[in-house]
Amino acid sequence: MANLAAAAVNGTRQWQRLMRLAELGAIPGDGVNRACLTALDREARRLVIGWAREAGATISVDDAANLFLRREGTAPDAAPVLTGSHMDSQPAGGRFDGIYGVVAGLEALAAFDDAGITTRRPIEVVAWTNEEGGRFTPGCMGSMAWSGHSPLSTWSEVRDPDGITFESALAEHLAAESDLPRRALGGKPHACIEAHIEQGPMLEAARSDIGVVLGIQGSRWFSVTISGDSAHAGTAPVGMRRDAVQDMLRAITALNALTADPDDILRFTVGRITVLPNSSNSVAAEARFTIDLRHPDAATLTRIGDAIAPTIQGALRHCEAAIIETFHAMPANFAPEVIEAVAAAAAECGHSHLRLASGAFHDAQFVVPLCPTGMIFVPCRNGVSHNPAEYSSSEQLEAGTRVLTHALEQLGK
Amino acid sequence: MANLAAAAVNGTRQWQRLMRLAELGAIPGDGVNRACLTALDREARRLVIGWAREAGATISVDDAANLFLRREGTAPDAAPVLTGSHMDSQPAGGRFDGIYGVVAGLEALAAFDDAGITTRRPIEVVAWTNEEGGRFTPGCMGSMAWSGHSPLSTWSEVRDPDGITFESALAEHLAAESDLPRRALGGKPHACIEAHIEQGPMLEAARSDIGVVLGIQGSRWFSVTISGDSAHAGTAPVGMRRDAVQDMLRAITALNALTADPDDILRFTVGRITVLPNSSNSVAAEARFTIDLRHPDAATLTRIGDAIAPTIQGALRHCEAAIIETFHAMPANFAPEVIEAVAAAAAECGHSHLRLASGAFHDAQFVVPLCPTGMIFVPCRNGVSHNPAEYSSSEQLEAGTRVLTHALEQLGK
Repeated sequence: MANLAAAAVNGTRQWQRLMRLAELGAIPGDGVNRACLTALDREARRLVIGWAREAGATISVDDAANLFLRREGTAPDAAPVLTGSHMDSQPAGGRFDGIYGVVAGLEALAAFDDAGITTRRPIEVVAWTNEEGGRFTPGCMGSMAWSGHSPLSTWSEVRDPDGITFESALAEHLAAESDLPRRALGGKPHACIEAHIEQGPMLEAARSDIGVVLGIQGSRWFSVTISGDSAHAGTAPVGMRRDAVQDMLRAITALNALTADPDDILRFTVGRITVLPNSSNSVAAEARFTIDLRHPDAATLTRIGDAIAPTIQGALRHCEAAIIETFHAMPANFAPEVIEAVAAAAAECGHSHLRLASGAFHDAQFVVPLCPTGMIFVPCRNGVSHNPAEYSSSEQLEAGTRVLTHALEQLGK
Repeated sequence: MANLAAAAVNGTRQWQRLMRLAELGAIPGDGVNRACLTALDREARRLVIGWAREAGATISVDDAANLFLRREGTAPDAAPVLTGSHMDSQPAGGRFDGIYGVVAGLEALAAFDDAGITTRRPIEVVAWTNEEGGRFTPGCMGSMAWSGHSPLSTWSEVRDPDGITFESALAEHLAAESDLPRRALGGKPHACIEAHIEQGPMLEAARSDIGVVLGIQGSRWFSVTISGDSAHAGTAPVGMRRDAVQDMLRAITALNALTADPDDILRFTVGRITVLPNSSNSVAAEARFTIDLRHPDAATLTRIGDAIAPTIQGALRHCEAAIIETFHAMPANFAPEVIEAVAAAAAECGHSHLRLASGAFHDAQFVVPLCPTGMIFVPCRNGVSHNPAEYSSSEQLEAGTRVLTHALEQLGK
């Protein structure tokens, strides 16, 4: 082992913490459903805060409820090195997506503490609010607000499926954590590394321990509402209907043609559909659906994304459509100095590595404009994620955390 | 006016009762959302029971929670003449669908009472349980159980959107009405007439007061579950997905082709869609949808209905489908003696009438095998139904009730 801090990483402790957190919101099949800004989320955060204090960290929360765990360096005024990820899950998510990056950061703090090492720069672990977008759309609200990508007020009126606004959920959450010191949104770290499971099959296929992430493809999200008229399924002639389900079908069929990609690089997903009144013998008055569009090339993402609204409008036969872009993130390239620090740390820790791009978006992409940023991936079984079956072994996760700890120590000098 | 009972019909009283009932479950736009077997339903039934007792009726409830209001005749052992409809509404329904037929029957009892007329046969007004199928699928459970079309236990495990079984909702309801005398399921009426709004545009177009209904087209309902695998919208290549939304799209597109009818007589509706996990950045693991298929010709209904499952299976590319037929009712023809009694009553009351078939299904079609059966339609504005905008005027409803009262008197001799 190349250095004392990485050697002090305790894979068993890390695994036990992950399994303890996975009990909060556990669902059948080893899954987790832990939405942001809920009582379950707060219970998980209290566990993390307790472990951080054991490692000598101080706690603070910003106006977006991003949670910071800071271990001071010998130069307290130096810009900190930032790490971390998010703690919320998909509605039917797994035990590792996001939460691994927070627990890995915690384990790095504990390893520094156990090894008696104090870096020159402070090390901060962050848990970003609402990365998944599973409760409030879009995701990455915490990191977007922190980085200045969008003001926090952008999402005040966004509602969860129960009709609760983001603004009120956030206010309730901050009130419940009013015992924790508050810090301002924003910052200027020296560097940032986020650790995460790959959520794809490449590391496993290459039998590689560590993914050195080069960048993140861009994303554009849209929300579409198709409005027709309800009518009686037995009496309304099909030819006279304004059936929102049927026009939704036409719209998605046209979007499939727009987004067809023989190289299978473009990602187009309709993952959420809501129909009103949603009665089997009533013609649908309204059909809402979401679009998730991703591509690594900015020009392609812009061109296809800009064609979405006209494609839908052109496909409708009887209804009207309202199309709103709810989220955008252009493709992000990570900083060479962080990429090389991660690659060097992997080599020094004796782990194989593969350089690759991320298909998923991550909070790290919003940190890119503020400081040199990168990511560490660890393999996950069959590339499965956003699913209860998501799995990485304790050994795979430990390897990632050793590399993270070593890279943090180097960047913290 | 041809006779004393019809002359005693009080349109104002009838309208006030309908408006009072419409307060229970009122939704914006003059609509009603009053599901069967709920506290709201029971509140509405208590109002109806009170009004029935004012008209000298006795009350009973059967094992399916069908509510009977009986006014004795001079020959108490004679088979009764049955009338009535249902009191549940669509989730976003109107103030007249179903409830009009119950209130019209009540008004007929009151008219007999006010006119001092006792028919030879008893007159029974029934409120059938769960005609709409809005809370528990399928509809017409009450009349199907009463008539022996299907045993009540068929639907024990059917769940509403909150996961409550029909069996437990029914048990709770019967317990809440345990003060009311219980009667056995089934019966052998002398005749049956159901009054209902048309739910279609024909009477309005023909400027006709009364619809003399000749029969009801057949219906087949199906529930389809398409099962794929959830995956991350950013990392899973489109070509490798088992996306339940995309295979649902293929299935409905193929069903549209199967059911295309240049004469626009066949009715094919996908009115309810549920997607899991229903997250914008997760590929759908499951997509469920309903099919409502109707046709007046039994052979066509059988042929197209039997082709539904193979059409879906042939359309799938990556997922599996489970297809269940949840409801069927073959086309029903009404009895000539009831049809002629209604037509004669309309003529004697001085109202114009039109002979027509029903596009909607009704509880009356399940009574057809047991006794001579028919229906009376009244016009509704623009043919709109299953919608808050559903409307018939007090005068239109009064005309229908006069004709009903006169026909009941004639059939009750």
